[in-house]
Amino acid sequence: MRTIRLLLVGVGNLGRRFCQILAAKEGLLRDQYGLSLVLVGAADSRGAAYDPQGLDPARVAALKSSGASVSAYEGAGHAEWDAVRLVLEAEAEVLLEASPVNLTQGGDPGLTCIRLAMQKGMHISTPNKGPLVLAFQELVLLAAENNVQFRFDGAVAGGLPAINLGQRDLRGAIVDRIEAVPNLVTGYVMDMLTEGLSWDEALKHARDEGVLEADASWDLDGWDAAAKLVILTNAVLGYPARLADVRRTGIQILETDDLYTARERGYRYRLLAQAERRQDGSYALSVAPVPLSPEHPLGNLGRKQMGIVYMSDIFGTITAIIEEQEPIPSAASLLRDVLDIVLSPSVGAVGKKVVKSRR
Amino acid sequence: MRTIRLLLVGVGNLGRRFCQILAAKEGLLRDQYGLSLVLVGAADSRGAAYDPQGLDPARVAALKSSGASVSAYEGAGHAEWDAVRLVLEAEAEVLLEASPVNLTQGGDPGLTCIRLAMQKGMHISTPNKGPLVLAFQELVLLAAENNVQFRFDGAVAGGLPAINLGQRDLRGAIVDRIEAVPNLVTGYVMDMLTEGLSWDEALKHARDEGVLEADASWDLDGWDAAAKLVILTNAVLGYPARLADVRRTGIQILETDDLYTARERGYRYRLLAQAERRQDGSYALSVAPVPLSPEHPLGNLGRKQMGIVYMSDIFGTITAIIEEQEPIPSAASLLRDVLDIVLSPSVGAVGKKVVKSRR
Repeated sequence: MRTIRLLLVGVGNLGRRFCQILAAKEGLLRDQYGLSLVLVGAADSRGAAYDPQGLDPARVAALKSSGASVSAYEGAGHAEWDAVRLVLEAEAEVLLEASPVNLTQGGDPGLTCIRLAMQKGMHISTPNKGPLVLAFQELVLLAAENNVQFRFDGAVAGGLPAINLGQRDLRGAIVDRIEAVPNLVTGYVMDMLTEGLSWDEALKHARDEGVLEADASWDLDGWDAAAKLVILTNAVLGYPARLADVRRTGIQILETDDLYTARERGYRYRLLAQAERRQDGSYALSVAPVPLSPEHPLGNLGRKQMGIVYMSDIFGTITAIIEEQEPIPSAASLLRDVLDIVLSPSVGAVGKKVVKSRR
Repeated sequence: MRTIRLLLVGVGNLGRRFCQILAAKEGLLRDQYGLSLVLVGAADSRGAAYDPQGLDPARVAALKSSGASVSAYEGAGHAEWDAVRLVLEAEAEVLLEASPVNLTQGGDPGLTCIRLAMQKGMHISTPNKGPLVLAFQELVLLAAENNVQFRFDGAVAGGLPAINLGQRDLRGAIVDRIEAVPNLVTGYVMDMLTEGLSWDEALKHARDEGVLEADASWDLDGWDAAAKLVILTNAVLGYPARLADVRRTGIQILETDDLYTARERGYRYRLLAQAERRQDGSYALSVAPVPLSPEHPLGNLGRKQMGIVYMSDIFGTITAIIEEQEPIPSAASLLRDVLDIVLSPSVGAVGKKVVKSRR
């Protein structure tokens, strides 16, 4: 029996569901892999809880569901601790960094926590796009220096192993093109508009369903898709792209007539993120609403589906699609990362060395 | 720079193409992964070649393309050696076992070569369904005993990482259902019949295209799909299924009218391999031609496409599809296996312990 201690920073929708999964899977992980994953610490925006003997993940989830902070955890709560303090104080093998995306404040608290944890010798799993977009190459080097694993399979397209597929299963290939629909909300809104709803109605529906964030621009203007494309480009293509490299068009430029015309031809609009290889080995990156034919590998995506297409020299065209009725698979991607780290650690921090410099 | 010595048993369509890929990728593997993959030996049905300093993979491929045996390799050929002799004589880190499927003669020469190589401490990559169907559980144990990696990602659906996806990316999940179209020929033939060709014409076309084997029954009667389903069930579901457990219906029971009726409804016939979880944790296995609606995740597969759908408790529904215009991705799956073995070795021989016994 092998014990792996986990720290969780960020206990929102994703982190809370991860705690529920952890509680539900205790027996399976022990029986199938001889593993005991012990959550020793958790932090949210109002404090932290830490117990070297382990917190009860079901109780952490219940606290959050009731609206309380994890710092209310009896006997382990620290209302005066923030996430950084937790990472500094705690001993653990893996940091799960699942705090909200934050590009404006230097990616914090996520980025600081990840840096500190790596320096303390912890492996990292994060679905947080902020640190990945702002500091991908730095974090890959830091992971290698500290001999820790750095996984982030949940950062792109929820529970779809889009990164794993690209980093591991396409090793040795030259990827000529990536096409991805990594954002759910925009497809949802465009489908609603196609059905005759007004923009206001469509956005209200998306908000009521909980799929649209408070900051609607992040999704609708394509920032989310662009961030995911930047992560794919760095992690899979080995090209050090930045957010400013993405030619980005949001869905709000669309007229209802565009959507009707597409539907009449049997096409469906999706916010498509594309990376196309140039002659010199760099990649042209774009995000834009595109009408997809039913023959396109992503042309039949439903409202709860995301997908990615990899076209390469030796692996043909590989498409992967996920349907998430609830965001459970997105939360389960943290478990996938942890089991990757423990059961098939990569040699070097990521599968592919960055050998291409920026143009 | 790390040197990995490879042995190749079976230099048919797949093995020959692998040699070409190896030759073409030498520089990329060195630059991106610091790896030198050296083919030190190869065997076909007429002999072998062995040079501890390395054979030229391009020359091996050229010999085979010209119709010669690898034993004609100047200075390294041994016409009197068979594959088993090569494995016994040679020193290498990885055995690539790509000889033809053979279920009637105890899976040989593949099975014997794999056993011997494991005992000599070699890691294994094999797309050969014979040994996997006949001796999966034995080989997993033997790999663990000898502390070697056992990979076979090319055994199911060509270059699609169907096994990798199931074994690694679904760790921790309970898979409720697998649906797969792992065989190209049957879809090709059914599409031809739907277009109005007779059975004889459709089979002739498939033979001319090189997609139908000499033994047509292997594909048409669903043996190939059933073998792949057995491998998936053992490797991904951790259930020790055998070929006799698959309820198998070939495509030859179909009447042309069935195909026409399906097309009129917008449906497309594919030979579908299914594993469905029973209450007791065992799986009901079947292979049969099924009309798929356009809404089915595999309902729009073209003639050069194969795919798989995994439905699980925590990862939603994940679909993966490959389009192979030429069988290059199938051959590249050997490279994928080797890079997996070297760059992200699994702890334990496979990702999932068999914990379920047969009913």
